Amino acid sequence: MGKRVAIVGVGNGKFGKRHGFTARELAHEAVKEAFEDANLTPKDIQASVISIAGEQFASQGAPAALINDYVGLTGKPTIRVESACASGTAAIRTAYGLISSGLHDIIMVIGVEKMNAISSAKATELMAYAGDTRWEYPYGVSFPGFYALFATAHMKKYGTTREQLSMVSVKNHHYGAKNPKAHLQKEVSLEEAMNSVPIAAPLNLYDCSLISDGAAAAILVSEDLAKKITDTPVWITGIGAGNDTMLIAERESLTSLKSARDAAQQAYKMAGIGPENVDVAEVHDCFTIAEIIAYEDLGFAKPGEGGKLIEEEQTYIGGKIPVNVDGGLKAKGHPVGATGVSQAYTLVKQLRGEAVVQVDGAEIGLSHNVGQSGQFTNVIIYSRDKKLK
Amino acid sequence: MGKRVAIVGVGNGKFGKRHGFTARELAHEAVKEAFEDANLTPKDIQASVISIAGEQFASQGAPAALINDYVGLTGKPTIRVESACASGTAAIRTAYGLISSGLHDIIMVIGVEKMNAISSAKATELMAYAGDTRWEYPYGVSFPGFYALFATAHMKKYGTTREQLSMVSVKNHHYGAKNPKAHLQKEVSLEEAMNSVPIAAPLNLYDCSLISDGAAAAILVSEDLAKKITDTPVWITGIGAGNDTMLIAERESLTSLKSARDAAQQAYKMAGIGPENVDVAEVHDCFTIAEIIAYEDLGFAKPGEGGKLIEEEQTYIGGKIPVNVDGGLKAKGHPVGATGVSQAYTLVKQLRGEAVVQVDGAEIGLSHNVGQSGQFTNVIIYSRDKKLK
Repeated sequence: MGKRVAIVGVGNGKFGKRHGFTARELAHEAVKEAFEDANLTPKDIQASVISIAGEQFASQGAPAALINDYVGLTGKPTIRVESACASGTAAIRTAYGLISSGLHDIIMVIGVEKMNAISSAKATELMAYAGDTRWEYPYGVSFPGFYALFATAHMKKYGTTREQLSMVSVKNHHYGAKNPKAHLQKEVSLEEAMNSVPIAAPLNLYDCSLISDGAAAAILVSEDLAKKITDTPVWITGIGAGNDTMLIAERESLTSLKSARDAAQQAYKMAGIGPENVDVAEVHDCFTIAEIIAYEDLGFAKPGEGGKLIEEEQTYIGGKIPVNVDGGLKAKGHPVGATGVSQAYTLVKQLRGEAVVQVDGAEIGLSHNVGQSGQFTNVIIYSRDKKLK
Repeated sequence: MGKRVAIVGVGNGKFGKRHGFTARELAHEAVKEAFEDANLTPKDIQASVISIAGEQFASQGAPAALINDYVGLTGKPTIRVESACASGTAAIRTAYGLISSGLHDIIMVIGVEKMNAISSAKATELMAYAGDTRWEYPYGVSFPGFYALFATAHMKKYGTTREQLSMVSVKNHHYGAKNPKAHLQKEVSLEEAMNSVPIAAPLNLYDCSLISDGAAAAILVSEDLAKKITDTPVWITGIGAGNDTMLIAERESLTSLKSARDAAQQAYKMAGIGPENVDVAEVHDCFTIAEIIAYEDLGFAKPGEGGKLIEEEQTYIGGKIPVNVDGGLKAKGHPVGATGVSQAYTLVKQLRGEAVVQVDGAEIGLSHNVGQSGQFTNVIIYSRDKKLK
């Protein structure tokens, strides 16, 4: 293997409806915080990798150069990486490769999306365009529809309940309410969550993540440099990436994502750990059913028992495995290109003991980031040096 | 540094107006040829990196998964990389990192663009959208306009002539006429080239590259695997990536691309060679002036002497440094996401001694791939094992 890679600085702008802010300005907010966090300046950076899922959201073709320039990295080579909603972790994987190979020693990873320049209906339509535009999109399937199919299949096969879906929403809103950077900072009762307006049966409004503007940034460095910059590096100890068929009609199952299982298996193997070793997880709850399926795909619960895991409150702090204690996509928000980098932000803060809602003594964090309807999943495992805490 | 990386198989579909073919079908054409070239099958591949510049051209959001699936790589993780017209070499750089770091041993790189589903005027507008959409695009600057500014500046500063611009076109059409995969397979006389219709003064029709459909593919592997697969691996011995300001109004010069000079310097240093060692080059002749500037940025000519280099026919076979002997973007065509991968195709064929128009005994090839109006340049140096030939 190549060189070890660590994160030495992170930033996360406010997620929400950021009217008046362009993508470049949102990116700058996150990058500035990452520089301050690492006590570095643009001259220290050798290259950037930028995650933006939709150029149509950004209202800018080939948006990487513009953002690279605006955040002060002019002259440093940049690449845009796109894997739909998994773009953020794809950018981290790309930067990991460029550093671990020895091509670069320090890279700024930036994830950003400006989604509210257009209506929610238009944004949903643009996202639907990431379904197969020959065999899915023309028939009216948008992402709530894909995940409604998954929910229906999971309920039928395993008896997962309407209440259990809403319990995911209640938990994530509970933690989102405490996160000053979250898009929606409010608690939601089980009754409210269960009785909200239907979106795509069986999913209702409180089963769906948010259409948010926002950005996150992370500074990745090689092992040699990490030790010079900080006493509290957070290491990337496992990376897995999975893929599945474009058409969900061709999947072997609608109750589990093969891409996620494959990615998790690779990441656990590379890190030399199992799900029982993870102290805190960020999972891709684009819809409540997605979080329940993630529990199972990541090995936090057996197949079919994800609903029970949330019902027993095992994914709250104090439970078996705290999940999305920053509010998740559901309450923190889901500015698509930023999401995977924001998961890194939360986990780095957790492993340093600096999170707003802290999981005491967390040493190993896991990030699970899904693109499209499961065509992409990236799983990344982050670890801190035990001796430091 | 990490592991050495080689290319062991390449494919290049026919470039042109491929009516009736979608992006996925074009990609398959190139991938199939690469598999046959390497005598490998999809089961041998661990991951893919896909270069597509414009999702609007592809008529598909997040197009990587769809293409990955269609070419037979379902289940193998994929990433889409985008650096405007330099996306193809950005994909090779990304794959290099993923292999050299040890994350993967074998990756299929695919570059594809379907541009003729819309009119040339609409395609030009979509490309213009890659200029700054706040400070350039609204004022009507499209890419012929950017390069017309470069041409005017170069003519004024160095006395570069209208004839010299057209001589680039004549050379590239001369070689394109011999390339069965080229979009335009016809010779053009100096008189025709000089008197074609104006596009953006001083550039006319024969100064502009083509709006093409097409795809190219390359199989990258680690050193260990290379030796098992082929006796004629082509090594990636140098990679450089440069960047410059988003706004051309902020550039230090309009007669040279700083991103290209930086990328070349890095690539030469990594490969341990200088421009005098290059036997054959593929440069980004999106406009004829771009090829002349490339001669200078790459060190094939001194600043201001690029025009003289083509006038003396030094970039023909038999001259000092043969450039774009496959027809270049000008005659072979420029399906944006495919271009950098197609450069790899040509150079691999050259270094194996298998090119349609062969540079005898070529051992070292250079690829120069520019994005936007010089915001990105990637330079890659390819070398063959000397003992093999």
